[in-house]
Amino acid sequence: MGESNVKLVGSWPSPFVLRVRLALRLKSVSYEFIEENLLEPRTELLLKLNPLHKKVPVFIHRGKPIIESQAILQYIDEVWPNAPSILPSDAPQRADARIWVSYIDEKLVPALIVALIAETEDAKRAAIAELEQVVVTLEGALRELSKGKRFFCGDNISYLDIAFGPFFLWIEVIGKYIDVDLLSEAKTPCLLRCAHESFLSHAAVKDLLPDPEKLAEFAVKLRPILIARFAGK
Amino acid sequence: MGESNVKLVGSWPSPFVLRVRLALRLKSVSYEFIEENLLEPRTELLLKLNPLHKKVPVFIHRGKPIIESQAILQYIDEVWPNAPSILPSDAPQRADARIWVSYIDEKLVPALIVALIAETEDAKRAAIAELEQVVVTLEGALRELSKGKRFFCGDNISYLDIAFGPFFLWIEVIGKYIDVDLLSEAKTPCLLRCAHESFLSHAAVKDLLPDPEKLAEFAVKLRPILIARFAGK
Repeated sequence: MGESNVKLVGSWPSPFVLRVRLALRLKSVSYEFIEENLLEPRTELLLKLNPLHKKVPVFIHRGKPIIESQAILQYIDEVWPNAPSILPSDAPQRADARIWVSYIDEKLVPALIVALIAETEDAKRAAIAELEQVVVTLEGALRELSKGKRFFCGDNISYLDIAFGPFFLWIEVIGKYIDVDLLSEAKTPCLLRCAHESFLSHAAVKDLLPDPEKLAEFAVKLRPILIARFAGK
Repeated sequence: MGESNVKLVGSWPSPFVLRVRLALRLKSVSYEFIEENLLEPRTELLLKLNPLHKKVPVFIHRGKPIIESQAILQYIDEVWPNAPSILPSDAPQRADARIWVSYIDEKLVPALIVALIAETEDAKRAAIAELEQVVVTLEGALRELSKGKRFFCGDNISYLDIAFGPFFLWIEVIGKYIDVDLLSEAKTPCLLRCAHESFLSHAAVKDLLPDPEKLAEFAVKLRPILIARFAGK
């Protein structure tokens, strides 16, 4: 489904951008990708398109910029209602998916950032404890919601998988950086299985995600930028 | 539309709970209300129903607890699709509404809390500046989105009004507490008009919202609890 008026301003390592790219691929929507370099000052284009948050992704459809990956994913599902659906078809499952996507954005994302930028031993210990707890909470959610199926909400990839999946890579990269096995057979068997047997081997995901080594190099370069940004708060 | 299996665990002053009550009233859904006292330790019931965030509202439908007001409002709209719609009918408007509801929860809510709990003069000044900026940003959003209509997304009350409206009262109460006119004819004429001529005089809203003086008394009692909670972080 080629549409000449679909554009995405994004950055290759951003898990929020990867959510949108994955959704567009699942829906077979082609688009122009405009790369924003997260290691450089924000471009004029980004500041103009997203003055509210100054962040990628910005999805542009028929000239209208839409920001925030949660809103973009739902917009894509509504505007391209062809199969596969992004939101689960059942209202209680949709509610669960929305609740857990919020949890990822409110708890997992800050925990990953804090773990990456922690500078003292005390800060590192606290960050690791918090991050481990968040990951174990997500393991519980996956176990409860999936009921033994392959993905969070059943046998097919949907909203919560699309929102969470790109973080499998980031969890691995940050885990290596802080020298902690965040995903393990002992503590998070369901997440581990979902990562390798379901999400990362899905046809639409395989060559979409960045190379983990390249991502690890990027994380090291991003770290001082994040430290400066949060110290300025 | 009476349904015996609809319950809401909430607290009378909570703007998040008021969102849900307003949505249920608009949809003519009757429900059992179970009051949780925000000035007391959380009840066993709340901890059992919402172990993830330990917060109201919890909406219970057919025995299933659903948490988080954004997810609850969308669930209600999906399960009771009768008029009036909560989400706007048009996908770009729905995206705008979702983006701005997130803005309210991510920016307005913390700014109100910080303004209420600020203890030093410096902290107060910073909190007031931040809160004023957030309110002016929302004024801009209302002006742009409403295009001169009565509500955020047109002539009828919808998602963004339902999510924002209960904060009109809280903005007034906190504004009085910190002695700042947050809403004024000079700086926020659209919000002021929307508050008085549209939202607060809407038939479904009028006797739903708490008395401002009672809310102001509650805010004074809540303040030390919030200070203790955030100091513990």
